[in-house]
Amino acid sequence: MPTLRLALCQVNPTVGDIDGNADLVRGWTRKAADAGAQLALFPELMLTGYPVEDLVFRRSFVAASKAALERLAADLAADGLGELPVMVGYLDADGPPQVSADAEPGRGARNAAALLYRGKIVATYFKHHLPNYGVFDEDRYFVPGDTLTVVRIGGVDVALTICEDLWQAGGPFAVARQAGVGLVLNINGSPYELNKDDIRLPLVRRRAAEAAATIAYVNMIGGQDELVFDGDSMIVSAEGQLLTRAPQFVEHLLVHDVELPPAKEPVDREEELADGMRVVRVKVSDTLPAPTGEVAVGGIIEPVADEAEVWQALVLGLRDYVNKNHFPSLVLGLSGGIDSAVSAAIAVDALGPERVVGVSLPSQHSSEHSRADAEELAKRTGLDYRIQPIQPMVDAFLANMSLSGVAVENLQARVRGVILMALSNQEGHLVLTTGNKSELAVGYSTLYGDSVGGYNPVKDVWKTLIWRLAKWRNADAAQRGETAPIPESSIGKAPSAELSPGQLDSDTLPAYDVLDPILIGYVDGDLGRDGLIESGHDPAVVDKVLRMVDTAEYKRRQSAPGTKISHKAFGRDRRLPITNRWREHG
Amino acid sequence: MPTLRLALCQVNPTVGDIDGNADLVRGWTRKAADAGAQLALFPELMLTGYPVEDLVFRRSFVAASKAALERLAADLAADGLGELPVMVGYLDADGPPQVSADAEPGRGARNAAALLYRGKIVATYFKHHLPNYGVFDEDRYFVPGDTLTVVRIGGVDVALTICEDLWQAGGPFAVARQAGVGLVLNINGSPYELNKDDIRLPLVRRRAAEAAATIAYVNMIGGQDELVFDGDSMIVSAEGQLLTRAPQFVEHLLVHDVELPPAKEPVDREEELADGMRVVRVKVSDTLPAPTGEVAVGGIIEPVADEAEVWQALVLGLRDYVNKNHFPSLVLGLSGGIDSAVSAAIAVDALGPERVVGVSLPSQHSSEHSRADAEELAKRTGLDYRIQPIQPMVDAFLANMSLSGVAVENLQARVRGVILMALSNQEGHLVLTTGNKSELAVGYSTLYGDSVGGYNPVKDVWKTLIWRLAKWRNADAAQRGETAPIPESSIGKAPSAELSPGQLDSDTLPAYDVLDPILIGYVDGDLGRDGLIESGHDPAVVDKVLRMVDTAEYKRRQSAPGTKISHKAFGRDRRLPITNRWREHG
Repeated sequence: MPTLRLALCQVNPTVGDIDGNADLVRGWTRKAADAGAQLALFPELMLTGYPVEDLVFRRSFVAASKAALERLAADLAADGLGELPVMVGYLDADGPPQVSADAEPGRGARNAAALLYRGKIVATYFKHHLPNYGVFDEDRYFVPGDTLTVVRIGGVDVALTICEDLWQAGGPFAVARQAGVGLVLNINGSPYELNKDDIRLPLVRRRAAEAAATIAYVNMIGGQDELVFDGDSMIVSAEGQLLTRAPQFVEHLLVHDVELPPAKEPVDREEELADGMRVVRVKVSDTLPAPTGEVAVGGIIEPVADEAEVWQALVLGLRDYVNKNHFPSLVLGLSGGIDSAVSAAIAVDALGPERVVGVSLPSQHSSEHSRADAEELAKRTGLDYRIQPIQPMVDAFLANMSLSGVAVENLQARVRGVILMALSNQEGHLVLTTGNKSELAVGYSTLYGDSVGGYNPVKDVWKTLIWRLAKWRNADAAQRGETAPIPESSIGKAPSAELSPGQLDSDTLPAYDVLDPILIGYVDGDLGRDGLIESGHDPAVVDKVLRMVDTAEYKRRQSAPGTKISHKAFGRDRRLPITNRWREHG
Repeated sequence: MPTLRLALCQVNPTVGDIDGNADLVRGWTRKAADAGAQLALFPELMLTGYPVEDLVFRRSFVAASKAALERLAADLAADGLGELPVMVGYLDADGPPQVSADAEPGRGARNAAALLYRGKIVATYFKHHLPNYGVFDEDRYFVPGDTLTVVRIGGVDVALTICEDLWQAGGPFAVARQAGVGLVLNINGSPYELNKDDIRLPLVRRRAAEAAATIAYVNMIGGQDELVFDGDSMIVSAEGQLLTRAPQFVEHLLVHDVELPPAKEPVDREEELADGMRVVRVKVSDTLPAPTGEVAVGGIIEPVADEAEVWQALVLGLRDYVNKNHFPSLVLGLSGGIDSAVSAAIAVDALGPERVVGVSLPSQHSSEHSRADAEELAKRTGLDYRIQPIQPMVDAFLANMSLSGVAVENLQARVRGVILMALSNQEGHLVLTTGNKSELAVGYSTLYGDSVGGYNPVKDVWKTLIWRLAKWRNADAAQRGETAPIPESSIGKAPSAELSPGQLDSDTLPAYDVLDPILIGYVDGDLGRDGLIESGHDPAVVDKVLRMVDTAEYKRRQSAPGTKISHKAFGRDRRLPITNRWREHG
């Protein structure tokens, strides 16, 4: 059996930074070569970053991706790395993109992969299965490929596939079996979700069985707007054995020697191929010397606790949002409560205390412990701590307007928002907002008040999980002999917005351990009222919660809608990544 | 030749208001019957409203749509309208919706139409071509139908089709020709775009030729979040003659007698049918008496000027957003400038002066003419006018913080935002924000300042078009002998944000007649830098503008992103209509 030394390059590309991403490929290919690798893989759309959304419609962007691919092939050869075949994702197009009606929706753009070898693009593959659910809109952007590319490397037949090709039965993996390949490469831009790693391994095993071949799965890491990619790259044998698996959320070079069956005589039985696909075969090399030196063993990372996984995801997502967008630093309000405390701890873990400003913004309703807990948090984490009382500004509004009730409560939150934005304008910080998913779901926040900010590290974290994260982070610190960042009293106290005397969340909301399960069923699970009641929830509480969620929908869409009169309004029909280094201008 | 009297019911449904929409069908079917109609048509997804976005994933919602359809059939019969066949759009599903991976993306939901007759659902049709570009995401939500439904009514074979089926060659219209039908019904939820009416008629003509049949095209009207539907219903003969056409932006009953060829013997030549579709035939009636009374002639509406069309779109979009969301009234800041003046005039046209509050928010940098022009606008339109100086609140911030430069400029805009939101909380108004598309594109506005608001009537209107709209509206008023709403000095003066002494837009931006063509090429046209320069624009100005647009992207996404850790974060993967009357709770 031939042995191939594979290098899975689990790296962190940046959307739009085509040159920087190409440099990443050069640097990591060098590392792979130094480790004696005979085949290197990089993630989906490596050269452009992922997802590129409406950048696909810019001809100049597609042209830049294609030009960068050719240059990269030449540069790798010039670097002395031309003998190492490298699979890399890029953006291709058959023709100019089309979005007009009265034409096939296909726009000509391709989610593509290339094999680079000896200074040339020796093979390409176009993604066959395009995901169009959840965060994916690939039917908008790409036309599917209908050809499986099989490259012969060191006498082994190797099929090239991309991401979603792995998530659906039929298609490339079925064709790969018919084509008799020994190895399938699958390159990914697969965003993190809690417990997704528990799904991936069984999935890769199913496809290995379907293809009757070893699978090398490489995924990117890094934050891109609300997405965070977790890596979790792995190799699984044709028999379903996990051979090696990389850690999540860090760049990693996974090098592993794999024994593979020698290529059979190519037989093109077109009539048997699945899903209307055909096969194209490309010969790179019939034989290779056995890998040199010791046998390369990538190792198998152990799974970590859910809280640790989520914490790493939130830290990486925030760090990359800040750094890829070139923000020097962060500012956030510290109320002494659990949400801002956890957010501050995430921020400090992401960027270090010297890049985080925490501001206590006390009002006449702020309790003594609020200030004390904020100060204690600052002391433990070492962030830049300030105090800015809001009462003089609040009083100026109250003296000049006739306000009462909720208007006065919200006024306080909005004055805090104005102060944080003024600090942002004056000193250059990005403002963090820290409302948790439970609050967002029921609309328990002030529009243009505590919701002010360019990024929310805990927007997808239910309140009950916020508490679990806080406890886990403190315990983890204790285990490592470090200072626990989050004051115990911030974890233990009853949640309060402190916008009126003695106010508690529980005046308005059910207890969070009652609220969260209902919200999880309704929001995450799309359960209806009847389904929630069947699950055992109190009908009166269900009705109260659903009423809050339904009426909160409009608050969440802060970016004001307005009547669209063109085919490219800023809104539904224009979707661009926020974090995006692509620049047209000279 | 048989003659059929068709009634195209161009009505205004509301998303989620299933009972209210069913009542609309009953009311308008009554009107159609009173006019002697022999076949009535209602728009796409009439019963649920359009688009329903992620409501599709709620089983309870799909079940409510199906139950409402059955009830509607029975109610029409009970109303004595059972003899009139009615085509109505509704939401159907073959099975429970699926969105999980490792399954076909098809989720079982159908964009459906039914023919109701004598208390029963006698035929159904599932939309074949699903649009997935621009504002449409139907590949996410629906599985395509593969069967053309042909109903025999009064001895005429009539094919049922839905919206996008008309926009693509092949598919249902090609099959309709093979099936030998005399009439194709096409029901729509087709959003307005400037000049779209110029595209629709030639398109309907092409499909009439493809089907060799008369086409009856009915579209809804009304605002739904950022979409506005314009109606423009019509009938075109097989020879391409426009027989009748309804006005845009108003509910309208278009009744017209059409001579149609008698049905031929049904011949099912399955092997000849286009696009993998088959045909199902349903007999409603072999003969009908000729329509009674005078010949019904729907008339052909004359096209109006672009400015008139856009004005009507903006008025209807705003009116429906306010009324369908149950806001009692609006509040907006009046600067004396053209954007707020045009927005106020639109608001007054939409809701009447008694539901519009305009607030002058002068600072120390506000010119005398700013106040005078705002007051003049208020006098001309009759809106509720107030003055709220901002200096005391601005001074309170300046006294307690060390701010300078842009931070001070933005502070003023943010204090205005806080005041408008306080009025909103205190009195219940929806806040209008009034930044035009040119400003939004280059980021020439203050985040959480003048961008504060729940709706922006001019968000998709380039600045140069704002001026044209103002002049058109005034001239139109003059022609009708009414008061021109917009003060001439608001139209004529040089644009200024008035946030620092003597500030003008032209200090920062190119002149709008230079800026807008570049923005239109870059934003609307996806032209790159080279394409813009080839079009004759100054390279230095192009670079300046593109730099502003690129750096403004993040400002537009005010709804803070944050790391997603679930499959249903509030963001990209959870998309719900804001205007939505669907309520789960009891």
